[in-house]
Amino acid sequence: MAPIKTGLLGLGTVGGGAVTVLSRNASEIARRAGREIVISHAAAKEYDADAIHGLERIDRITDDGFAVVNDPEVEIIIELIGGYSPAKELVLRAIENKKHVVTANKALIATHGNEIFAAAQENGVIVAFEAAVAGGIPIIKAIREGLVANRIQWAAGIINGTGNFILTEMRDKNRDFADVLREAQELGYAEADPTFDVEGIDAAHKLTIMGSIAFGIPLQLEKTYTEGIGKIEQQDVVYADELGYRIKHLGITRHTGEGIELRVHPTLIPARRLIANVDGVMNAVLVQGDAVGPTLYYGAGAGSLPTASAVVADVIDVVRALTTDPENRVPHLAFQPDAMSDVPVLDMEDVHTAYYLRMQVVDQPGVLAKVTAILAKLGISIKALIQKEPLAGANHVPVIFLTQRVIERNMNTAIEQIEALDSINGGVRRIRVESLD
Amino acid sequence: MAPIKTGLLGLGTVGGGAVTVLSRNASEIARRAGREIVISHAAAKEYDADAIHGLERIDRITDDGFAVVNDPEVEIIIELIGGYSPAKELVLRAIENKKHVVTANKALIATHGNEIFAAAQENGVIVAFEAAVAGGIPIIKAIREGLVANRIQWAAGIINGTGNFILTEMRDKNRDFADVLREAQELGYAEADPTFDVEGIDAAHKLTIMGSIAFGIPLQLEKTYTEGIGKIEQQDVVYADELGYRIKHLGITRHTGEGIELRVHPTLIPARRLIANVDGVMNAVLVQGDAVGPTLYYGAGAGSLPTASAVVADVIDVVRALTTDPENRVPHLAFQPDAMSDVPVLDMEDVHTAYYLRMQVVDQPGVLAKVTAILAKLGISIKALIQKEPLAGANHVPVIFLTQRVIERNMNTAIEQIEALDSINGGVRRIRVESLD
Repeated sequence: MAPIKTGLLGLGTVGGGAVTVLSRNASEIARRAGREIVISHAAAKEYDADAIHGLERIDRITDDGFAVVNDPEVEIIIELIGGYSPAKELVLRAIENKKHVVTANKALIATHGNEIFAAAQENGVIVAFEAAVAGGIPIIKAIREGLVANRIQWAAGIINGTGNFILTEMRDKNRDFADVLREAQELGYAEADPTFDVEGIDAAHKLTIMGSIAFGIPLQLEKTYTEGIGKIEQQDVVYADELGYRIKHLGITRHTGEGIELRVHPTLIPARRLIANVDGVMNAVLVQGDAVGPTLYYGAGAGSLPTASAVVADVIDVVRALTTDPENRVPHLAFQPDAMSDVPVLDMEDVHTAYYLRMQVVDQPGVLAKVTAILAKLGISIKALIQKEPLAGANHVPVIFLTQRVIERNMNTAIEQIEALDSINGGVRRIRVESLD
Repeated sequence: MAPIKTGLLGLGTVGGGAVTVLSRNASEIARRAGREIVISHAAAKEYDADAIHGLERIDRITDDGFAVVNDPEVEIIIELIGGYSPAKELVLRAIENKKHVVTANKALIATHGNEIFAAAQENGVIVAFEAAVAGGIPIIKAIREGLVANRIQWAAGIINGTGNFILTEMRDKNRDFADVLREAQELGYAEADPTFDVEGIDAAHKLTIMGSIAFGIPLQLEKTYTEGIGKIEQQDVVYADELGYRIKHLGITRHTGEGIELRVHPTLIPARRLIANVDGVMNAVLVQGDAVGPTLYYGAGAGSLPTASAVVADVIDVVRALTTDPENRVPHLAFQPDAMSDVPVLDMEDVHTAYYLRMQVVDQPGVLAKVTAILAKLGISIKALIQKEPLAGANHVPVIFLTQRVIERNMNTAIEQIEALDSINGGVRRIRVESLD
């Protein structure tokens, strides 16, 4: 099958990320989608050619977005300019031209989505916008498809990373709002004009979209209550803690008996909730469905590659929607049957991991030296060690090791040798350790 | 469009749940899928007719599964019998008959998936199995579609609720393994024969499937290293805590340079990781992609309605795959354009929520009485109260209230009245409180 040609609008942070992902993971993507995906035409007013990996694979780069959306060879338009104009005009023109559209533009969708979707419907094309809410987290897909059997009851999300970074720093380091905001700006998390993040406008865009897909109501940004985090003081963070709560900037949408709530504001939530422990720039959305109960989705809500992950997923979704044989649309094992991998599954002996070891050691000098000598000879470094006092009357003490990562084969040998020592009582209890980072 | 007819195999816990969800949420589902979905033919050896909501909507119930899979009117077979036989024969016969199949059967997919998918491919049908991994969490969809642009690096999951319940109780309540297992059996979480849960076999089925969809390798259950939680002792849980870790029963799959790891075993993980705080019977899967970074998916991994949520989502996915006009497959706002809701968005004044209030009160008798009288008159109950000592030299003290839920209109009135009191210095700081339960 011939590669599918896409046109890209914008080569900024997210646009550059999309080029990188499509180029770096080209073969993986083709093996999954069943078809190669290329960017044949791109438009940007200015861009940093050296910073974008894979830029040389784009056939043509122009500064005229309309040249891209009018290009008859292009089937899918990827809009990553942001803002209202010319993004809106370009998207509407693309739709008129019967091209599918993928966009990360939450401001555009929240504000003009009703008009854009009506045009798409009329022209028989898809407008995909996974990246518009919570960046790399596939939350649109989760709500629209994964939870499609549920009556959604409510959803609540940390959907602005900058705001969450500020609140996390205020709590963890006892810092003031203004002080952390300055740092966020220096780190590039917050814009020079932080209004969109700090006053909740960005979160309101995302929440408006979430509310519509949860409850099937038209987009109504103007009815979304929006309150920022600018008035939160350090002492509120401290008192909340004292009461067993954390302050998070949440977007909440709920179906009550009488209507639908759409509100963005700082919120105290119980500290024991998983979402209360989502810190720094990370995002998370908690969705309550009548059948499934609570589900939570966590990940990076912004940034070049995470956002590009969602953008490219949408592009592949569109490509798959054009596939008319259902059995190939989403392959059973994610990759097309003729593109499966023959990478072998490793024996457990060949796996690298860290270990927790617990043993009962005779309480006499030199025993620990023997054990550590065995570990050292097999290249096993010790990261932490606990040795407990013997219980009254006992002549054995429990010793616990945390080791660094090592190949399991060596650990098996070490345990065998340790268990053969006279000064070890019983076996060695081994539990594997993973840092998951 | 005429309703699509499905055939259901099995009316047990999950089968009953599927009947309930399809019946209870029938109109919601039709508004999303663009088509009504009915169960026209079901088969079960025995079932509890009184326990299943919506059973009367099934046209025909037989005890012969083959009658259902051979029924020419049925387009989708929902296999919820579990086990290997006759589930395998029924699924293969359905596929031969060119029917799409939805199944929650992880043992069947992990063991015979390669054969089943090859048959599906040959016959041009879909076999969907979202419910086979992590119950109601749409993790298959997240990996196969949401993260499709990524090279997956690794995935690690708490994918057996019974095991997680046991480990959570051992830690929270200082209980022994055997003791908690007995309770889990009494609560119905663990089977009378707990082998599948406790020895990790159930988790190995799920991990085998996750590994295949993450890396595009054939299903290889026999190569999945499987270790249960039966040897974990109370003291290990305590030492792990002391070292800053939690013990979780994880399924881990990772692409290393040399091959793919597939392993299920108890694992120490840093206590600060979000997944370390997933407790009780809940499941969670952490997936690391090269573009998106870490993402986490959390929810109920078992149970009648949560599993049915995934089963019915798969049925709708199949129905959508049969839709050839791309713009209607997954509607932009989740519901078909002609089935949108006109439920109004509520004014913020009409929202019910709880509140945190902080005010500076003159340090003299009777002030608190005035404030609480205002709250009481407006029907606002106080849940918690903090009053601090005045700072040296200050004649104001900070007072913090946590209230019960109340309509915002009343709270606005209360704040207005409180701020008008002479004995209040400055404004009342109000932050909303949500329990998210």
